[in-house]
Amino acid sequence: MSLRGVGVDLRCHCIKTESRRIGKHIESVKLFPPSPHCKDTEIIATLKESRKEICLDPTAPWVKKVIEKILANRKP
Amino acid sequence: MSLRGVGVDLRCHCIKTESRRIGKHIESVKLFPPSPHCKDTEIIATLKESRKEICLDPTAPWVKKVIEKILANRKP
Repeated sequence: MSLRGVGVDLRCHCIKTESRRIGKHIESVKLFPPSPHCKDTEIIATLKESRKEICLDPTAPWVKKVIEKILANRKP
Repeated sequence: MSLRGVGVDLRCHCIKTESRRIGKHIESVKLFPPSPHCKDTEIIATLKESRKEICLDPTAPWVKKVIEKILANRKP
């Protein structure tokens, strides 16, 4: 779940993504669309207690479910 | 589009939301699910050039479209 410094976006942020379903630990999720610096969408979650930032797999069904829930004004 | 300091989340971040469709100016979007501090989902976009943070209306169809596109690995 290593993640490069989230400063100025000159390349991809994520090297690996979290495979465990950690929805209930998520405080927020940040979505980065494809850009000149990184050709694929990236999703970075901030965890509640530790405030750690970890990368999620945008293609994983459980990740899409988390975002669907948030958009539906529900907790992930 | 005023927005409280995005420090520790002790209350809602957003006071007003942006109504204009600014999808193509968006560098990233951050989703905050309902929490003890704020009962509704909040969405904060960071803009490309200015890197300004502005609040988006989670119920607006164009906002949901932006997130759908990002999840589909497309630019908003």
